[in-house]
Amino acid sequence: MKYNPVEIIIKKRSGKILTRDEISFFIESYLRDEIPEYQMSSLLMAIFFKKMLPEEIQTLTEIYINSGKKITFPSSMPTVDKHSTGGVGDKISIVLAPIVAACGAKIPMISGRGLGHTGGTLDKLESIPGFRTDYNYSEFKKMVDEVGFCIISQSKELVPADKRIYALRDVTGTVESLPLITASIMSKKIAEGAKNLVIDLKVGSGAFIKKMAQAEKLAELLMQTGENLGQKVSVVYSNMNSPLGEYAGNALEIKECIEFLKGKEIPDIYKITKILAEEMMILTEIAKDRDEASRMFTTVLQNGKALKYFRNFVKAQNGNPNICEDTSLLPQAKFQIPIIALKKGWVKSIDTQNIGYALVDIGAGRKTIESKLNYAAGAYLPIKVGHFIEKNSKIGNVFCDDEKLGYAAADKIAESYKTIASKAKYTENYIKEMELIYGLESGVEE
Amino acid sequence: MKYNPVEIIIKKRSGKILTRDEISFFIESYLRDEIPEYQMSSLLMAIFFKKMLPEEIQTLTEIYINSGKKITFPSSMPTVDKHSTGGVGDKISIVLAPIVAACGAKIPMISGRGLGHTGGTLDKLESIPGFRTDYNYSEFKKMVDEVGFCIISQSKELVPADKRIYALRDVTGTVESLPLITASIMSKKIAEGAKNLVIDLKVGSGAFIKKMAQAEKLAELLMQTGENLGQKVSVVYSNMNSPLGEYAGNALEIKECIEFLKGKEIPDIYKITKILAEEMMILTEIAKDRDEASRMFTTVLQNGKALKYFRNFVKAQNGNPNICEDTSLLPQAKFQIPIIALKKGWVKSIDTQNIGYALVDIGAGRKTIESKLNYAAGAYLPIKVGHFIEKNSKIGNVFCDDEKLGYAAADKIAESYKTIASKAKYTENYIKEMELIYGLESGVEE
Repeated sequence: MKYNPVEIIIKKRSGKILTRDEISFFIESYLRDEIPEYQMSSLLMAIFFKKMLPEEIQTLTEIYINSGKKITFPSSMPTVDKHSTGGVGDKISIVLAPIVAACGAKIPMISGRGLGHTGGTLDKLESIPGFRTDYNYSEFKKMVDEVGFCIISQSKELVPADKRIYALRDVTGTVESLPLITASIMSKKIAEGAKNLVIDLKVGSGAFIKKMAQAEKLAELLMQTGENLGQKVSVVYSNMNSPLGEYAGNALEIKECIEFLKGKEIPDIYKITKILAEEMMILTEIAKDRDEASRMFTTVLQNGKALKYFRNFVKAQNGNPNICEDTSLLPQAKFQIPIIALKKGWVKSIDTQNIGYALVDIGAGRKTIESKLNYAAGAYLPIKVGHFIEKNSKIGNVFCDDEKLGYAAADKIAESYKTIASKAKYTENYIKEMELIYGLESGVEE
Repeated sequence: MKYNPVEIIIKKRSGKILTRDEISFFIESYLRDEIPEYQMSSLLMAIFFKKMLPEEIQTLTEIYINSGKKITFPSSMPTVDKHSTGGVGDKISIVLAPIVAACGAKIPMISGRGLGHTGGTLDKLESIPGFRTDYNYSEFKKMVDEVGFCIISQSKELVPADKRIYALRDVTGTVESLPLITASIMSKKIAEGAKNLVIDLKVGSGAFIKKMAQAEKLAELLMQTGENLGQKVSVVYSNMNSPLGEYAGNALEIKECIEFLKGKEIPDIYKITKILAEEMMILTEIAKDRDEASRMFTTVLQNGKALKYFRNFVKAQNGNPNICEDTSLLPQAKFQIPIIALKKGWVKSIDTQNIGYALVDIGAGRKTIESKLNYAAGAYLPIKVGHFIEKNSKIGNVFCDDEKLGYAAADKIAESYKTIASKAKYTENYIKEMELIYGLESGVEE
């Protein structure tokens, strides 16, 4: 062996900077099964504590990318992707992609499935009868070009190093490391071939990043790694203290997306989608500034062009496009169970993670990778932080096929709303929340 | 599973205190192969960074002990053991045990073999023709009682948890953790059954503890863990900046021990042996105070009683006792190669680790567990920090059976002595070194 793996672990453990040669030796030997899992997990924990410099993160990201295939698009094509760090009710990709594509950008999206308390874009799309996400890369590229956007699942060929190391991090308590998160996100997003990237960085009780200071550090690492490796990156901070939109659950969120594209006013979805869309248009230079991007956003939403792009996308990926005209073609739940408020007062916080787990219980999400989903299951959750609720009033609905499980989930969800008697105190939080949605950190000059 | 191993890893990673239940669940599941190596190595690295409180260390030590058999001696027996944290030329156990046994204490010693740059007591003893160290525990207890002391190798039955976890620490960069070192030392020493323990804590360039502040922390953990688990512990700090005594190498050190027991003056061996012996006598209460212990030490050394105990010990463990009268019965090397000083000046430092590796090259130590030893190989190294040497003068000898390897080792050893032109500067270091040998931290009231 060129290096002694223990010496590399001890070097990082002592807070020293690993060379490109040392990092590539370690990762590549691991992928060839020449370095065992227990040495890799030990190095990962040392990285958790002693961190990595931007140049080390860049090296790690490059090694991840080079472990598999890389998709490329013509350099003249205005490609842009969006990545969200994940949250409850996060259906933004499904409305954002058709809007931005309708404005002229090309969006190659490789997405994930839900696990734990958060849902996955692929699961939501697959609730559309017939919809497929298992296209190969040449089909993917063709659809991006012709339809304007395409959303598929990650194959084994793309960034296998991250896939394997992520699985190890998951079981060794080394997920929450900013350098490792950066390399994991950026390697996948660069390997997908989009020249521009907007990151929806969720902050709050329902996100894995709880504090703004940590979010800012991660944003800087993401933008710097992108810049070093030739991808323009913008980061938008958004609040994950309330579930996004009014519905959670796979088919229910598709229905909500269609209604939004048809003009329904859903304030939080509107705000976050608009700012992300503007960023994507500015990065790809299909809009010359934010004002123009804002006008283009409003236009394609009002004139039905975004909905048309969505319809074409569903059709191209083998789904039934008639859901756009008749959402009752989507899977429908047998039962609707009311969610009853336990207390009176102003909602000061919502345990969105707990809501996510309640949804998993009725089949809207997965406990393990093998879990089977119930696409119709979900919930109507119109209450946000700052709203007033009366004791024993109906504050939402659970949609389910098992009445008993549904009542249990409704109780669990009801417990997730914490109220306060005075309005004064919540107001401050509410204003902060609304401000956060507009938070913006751009990696490029506007 | 009672707990989620990842949650325990994350709890320690966050600097929280693990409960007794959590620690025992993790260690015991690991020993049953229900928790994989990669989760254990991840927890070990988290412990390296976030440390453990004395109560956590006590729990870990107890679980280690309970993983195997435990030896017991009658409570009336004045049992005491000595543990050294290891160094080059460390033959102290071999002279200390017969002296203290001759004074009336009983010394059950389970010892280790050399690995890396340090030698092992068992290897030294096995250079005596016929000597055996593989006795079972009932034979061991019988010899301790009848001969006064017995030195054997660790069987698989004693503290198997430490054996397995130590092997993992060795390959995952988690050896240098004070809580893990404490549990590893104390579990073995308590399982051996001695009611009292003196620890020779080596500090300096040739020891794994380089700084006094770190040594003091370790000493406190060792004493506190001993106290919590019913073993009285004293710690003596000793300097490991020069090799101990004048000889290094297995048979050469046995010869040196016999000469010491016959009255040869070897200042550093005398000083460290005396203070350790005094501590052992005070702990077991066979001496009422340090003055009495000091007198008893001098007596058994001068009247030949200590040598007689050593002779009985060699005979009891199947060795040829006639080596005490005729040391030429020990393995003899074919060649003696002079070590030639490279520079003139006062010796300000000696790279004892480098000397240790030079000795490994000629077969006096092991590169890997499988390496075969040459018992006759070694070196005469009379020069200490503070001595004056002339360029091109002979400063020692290498003893070997391969002339070519011997010359290379002599060169490597010569390079290990760093000199300084002025005496003023070294003096301070020399005084510090001499003071350190007297350093003493006692876990009991005198």
